[in-house]
Amino acid sequence: MKVGFIGLGNMGQGMAHNLLRAGHHLTVYNRTRSAADSLAQAGATVADSAAAAAQGVEVLITMLADDEAVSAVIFGHDAAPGALSTLSTEAVHVSMSTVSVALSQRLAAAHAAANQAYLAAPVFGRPEAAAAAKLWVIAAGATEQIDRCRPLFDAIAQGVFAVGDEPWTANVVKVAGNFMIFSMLEALGESFALMQKSGVSPELFLDIINTALFKSPIYQNYGSIVVQQRYEPAGFKLKLGLKDVRLAIAAAEEAVVPMPLASLIRDHFLAAIARGDGEIDMAAIARVSEVNAGLSTGPRQGE
Amino acid sequence: MKVGFIGLGNMGQGMAHNLLRAGHHLTVYNRTRSAADSLAQAGATVADSAAAAAQGVEVLITMLADDEAVSAVIFGHDAAPGALSTLSTEAVHVSMSTVSVALSQRLAAAHAAANQAYLAAPVFGRPEAAAAAKLWVIAAGATEQIDRCRPLFDAIAQGVFAVGDEPWTANVVKVAGNFMIFSMLEALGESFALMQKSGVSPELFLDIINTALFKSPIYQNYGSIVVQQRYEPAGFKLKLGLKDVRLAIAAAEEAVVPMPLASLIRDHFLAAIARGDGEIDMAAIARVSEVNAGLSTGPRQGE
Amino acid sequence: MKVGFIGLGNMGQGMAHNLLRAGHHLTVYNRTRSAADSLAQAGATVADSAAAAAQGVEVLITMLADDEAVSAVIFGHDAAPGALSTLSTEAVHVSMSTVSVALSQRLAAAHAAANQAYLAAPVFGRPEAAAAAKLWVIAAGATEQIDRCRPLFDAIAQGVFAVGDEPWTANVVKVAGNFMIFSMLEALGESFALMQKSGVSPELFLDIINTALFKSPIYQNYGSIVVQQRYEPAGFKLKLGLKDVRLAIAAAEEAVVPMPLASLIRDHFLAAIARGDGEIDMAAIARVSEVNAGLSTGPRQGE
Amino acid sequence: MKVGFIGLGNMGQGMAHNLLRAGHHLTVYNRTRSAADSLAQAGATVADSAAAAAQGVEVLITMLADDEAVSAVIFGHDAAPGALSTLSTEAVHVSMSTVSVALSQRLAAAHAAANQAYLAAPVFGRPEAAAAAKLWVIAAGATEQIDRCRPLFDAIAQGVFAVGDEPWTANVVKVAGNFMIFSMLEALGESFALMQKSGVSPELFLDIINTALFKSPIYQNYGSIVVQQRYEPAGFKLKLGLKDVRLAIAAAEEAVVPMPLASLIRDHFLAAIARGDGEIDMAAIARVSEVNAGLSTGPRQGE
Repeated sequence: MKVGFIGLGNMGQGMAHNLLRAGHHLTVYNRTRSAADSLAQAGATVADSAAAAAQGVEVLITMLADDEAVSAVIFGHDAAPGALSTLSTEAVHVSMSTVSVALSQRLAAAHAAANQAYLAAPVFGRPEAAAAAKLWVIAAGATEQIDRCRPLFDAIAQGVFAVGDEPWTANVVKVAGNFMIFSMLEALGESFALMQKSGVSPELFLDIINTALFKSPIYQNYGSIVVQQRYEPAGFKLKLGLKDVRLAIAAAEEAVVPMPLASLIRDHFLAAIARGDGEIDMAAIARVSEVNAGLSTGPRQGE
Repeated sequence: MKVGFIGLGNMGQGMAHNLLRAGHHLTVYNRTRSAADSLAQAGATVADSAAAAAQGVEVLITMLADDEAVSAVIFGHDAAPGALSTLSTEAVHVSMSTVSVALSQRLAAAHAAANQAYLAAPVFGRPEAAAAAKLWVIAAGATEQIDRCRPLFDAIAQGVFAVGDEPWTANVVKVAGNFMIFSMLEALGESFALMQKSGVSPELFLDIINTALFKSPIYQNYGSIVVQQRYEPAGFKLKLGLKDVRLAIAAAEEAVVPMPLASLIRDHFLAAIARGDGEIDMAAIARVSEVNAGLSTGPRQGE
Repeated sequence: MKVGFIGLGNMGQGMAHNLLRAGHHLTVYNRTRSAADSLAQAGATVADSAAAAAQGVEVLITMLADDEAVSAVIFGHDAAPGALSTLSTEAVHVSMSTVSVALSQRLAAAHAAANQAYLAAPVFGRPEAAAAAKLWVIAAGATEQIDRCRPLFDAIAQGVFAVGDEPWTANVVKVAGNFMIFSMLEALGESFALMQKSGVSPELFLDIINTALFKSPIYQNYGSIVVQQRYEPAGFKLKLGLKDVRLAIAAAEEAVVPMPLASLIRDHFLAAIARGDGEIDMAAIARVSEVNAGLSTGPRQGE
Repeated sequence: MKVGFIGLGNMGQGMAHNLLRAGHHLTVYNRTRSAADSLAQAGATVADSAAAAAQGVEVLITMLADDEAVSAVIFGHDAAPGALSTLSTEAVHVSMSTVSVALSQRLAAAHAAANQAYLAAPVFGRPEAAAAAKLWVIAAGATEQIDRCRPLFDAIAQGVFAVGDEPWTANVVKVAGNFMIFSMLEALGESFALMQKSGVSPELFLDIINTALFKSPIYQNYGSIVVQQRYEPAGFKLKLGLKDVRLAIAAAEEAVVPMPLASLIRDHFLAAIARGDGEIDMAAIARVSEVNAGLSTGPRQGE
């Protein structure tokens, strides 16, 4: 298929390469052009603008950091018209970024007004999974559009979940999924602080609960990061964790759902950022519990 | 080995039977004598009192509901002297109940004063696991005592974790493990409420996060209970959940560790009990999020 | 002085009348024109648009419900240019509404770019205080502008606090002040629930703490509303309470300050709204504690 | 009246002196005898034990630090029988300490069994108020006993509130009153952190909210302590604040009332103690918000 692909960060790189490998024709665009070099070598066409990347394609994929970045490339601004203005009426925009429900609804309305199709299809998986075509796609929107994009999803993911007709519901699922992970980290952080002050090794505690109770690779992975304080380099920056829990809270507020655990996580992310941990891995939310237990005054490792 | 076994409830039944099956000699005691019938048939001696069950044994195991029950059988009272008074100085008391750190410390002191050995060895696993000899034992105390009891642990469990020399540390690990499960339930409850009000099926959401993220049987099991509202019969009563999170909070207070998520869980257990859900499964903590989201006023299923 | 006044709701009515009484020349504008009738009778000129109300005045006062309303009248939209486009470069815009820090910063930038002056001057006081010229003004911005507007503030308020050079700081003070009141209500709500379930009259408890501890008219007033369940007619709607605590949380997030009590209040406002209490007095946040204590399933009084 | 008075700490000293001044005959007892010197000079008889202080009196007043201290003097132990054993059947025990509902109920039962009368009559007021006979008494129990003790209350207090027939209800009111003060401190702490990071002086903010909103001496007093960081010498130690909020939470748990704000306060007291602030004034709970906002790593003033 002819695909426009905007956003060649940690995630987008791997995804775009996998699409090329699967035989699709890619026109890629990234604000920092150098990120497109390896894709150009692999056969992608490099566009000079978001609008150019959207021109003439069947499917436009966006994989960007946040609401602002997606808005900028789709709606453009004075100097640079966005992809909305060039995307053909036959085409579908597949928004794979983790963005707000509000933006997803705005995109749905704008594309509908322009007679373009629109899917929200955020993904679960870290950059390694993106590189290995092992993502999970959470797709929402018209069934025929999901079916149309399935070959693309198959090229980047190990599975697709279709969650509904309303694109924004996929965004809700994505941010709630991230909230589930943050919840696990908060629970681990509090337990580890208790273990440390009780003279039990957090590593042993992690081993026990994961062997006897959870049997979950993600408990093992994140738990190990915390136990070993491997917060750098960040797999997923703590300040992005704040962004995501904020999206969950905003979605819940829209739906009139109190989520006190989400509020607690948000406040702990803020405390971590206030202390200077915004750029290290989000698993460092566990350090807030350490600091509150008097185990550390919170300067980062190595400082 | 010659073993005294006190407490033949849902958990104790299965454990005692497995000890018999492994060839150990059991003297059992339960406040309600009828609970001992099937064990008598299987070859156990039935004692008339806790003190009698402790007499002449090498190992005394207690598996009871709470601090009060354990105190009663060990320390006794005016009319009935406790097991402490009859246990020989060669013997070891293995306390497998989920009790407070404070009681565990009091038991350690009392047994030491009586020249008796003491282990805390609470278990992870529900009644089915107890019946199937698939528990996990968290043991703490003197290494030689743990080694001495290993044949017994092997008869009831699929594994033993030795966590330290201080018996009470095993109790901390146990209540923190339960806190981890409660945390999962709280996170699921909040997410499910968000899903319902967003028009996404909680069942689908559970399937997504467990396939793409957690891959954990315990998420699957508890998640299904909530999704299907299978709160009766209770696998583990909600009011016992309150007891256990209270133990975690008490242990944390002793160690001067704030655990705000544990506080949140405690407050939600209380809200559930105030609404009349104390006797149904603890997974019903998820209903607090439903009620707070206006999805239910909280009368129990079937009322 | 020649004053433009936009926003003639519960608060604005009284304020505008008091300005007229003090001898100022008013051009007023309200979306619903009938709200201007009594002011017209009292000598005010009625404008047809926000832009018209701003034309030729020395001071433009806005007193509106929320960010959206203020943005609409200042920035306008396609069909209707806003006050920004007609306000003279000699003039100052005094924004007295309770709005976000973000909007206040945007207004500051826009007015600066248009060579207009700008003050944020939100007020404390309910409609009765506005009618009685008994408000308190929290002003921030250039000192000479505050001095210039002092005769206007004197006509509507019993006092003015100047809090800084940056206009947005007045908005932070305002929303934090409201947060202090919400905190009082939450504390009262939890205590009253405890009293009820302990068989002590909440009214007596209120009397005790206000006599022995707080000696505060505002504890007395709000406490009585809760004790007597006088939630209708709403003095200040609960859904506006949610708006205001959200503004406090947003300001705190901008400043990287976790405010867990604000988060708790927000979640309780949401629970109240989910249950149908959004349109009654914000003091009904106390009912969330009642519902959580099983004292009520939360249908509104009279239903 | 013939009065036994046990507990001559900061509070008890002033109270006992005021009873003497009002013409009552006092027999006093304090664990550390030197605390009784000034009372002996003023005419009190000094007893050698709690049991001796209770002998032959009409009214026995206890004013001690906590549950443990009250239990020790009333119930005694092996070496030293308690006041319960010597108090005449005509006499009434007036427990004025801040103790748990559970202990108050235990005292009620024990005195009833001994045919002695019992009132719970905790007080509001700090040591200065005790010295100036300006306390407030919260009394509960049989009306005739409250009437009988009124001359004593009048000698030490500016007022008496009778809250019910069940003595323990007075203890609930007392701990809930303290909870109200802690809530105020938490709200101030969060707001002050926001002010500091927004460039507004907390002192000015305090002045604004107390002038425009609360008009409360207690907001002024505690607010000033925080603003000026006058945490030493402690008027009321933070670790005692933890004790008191724990009593409120225990009373609420007994009544099945979730109090999430009390939980939040408890967790912040714990965080403060973990950081080393247990011995300074409880107003230092405000520092937790400072630390969480990155304004301080929390070492105490002067370190």
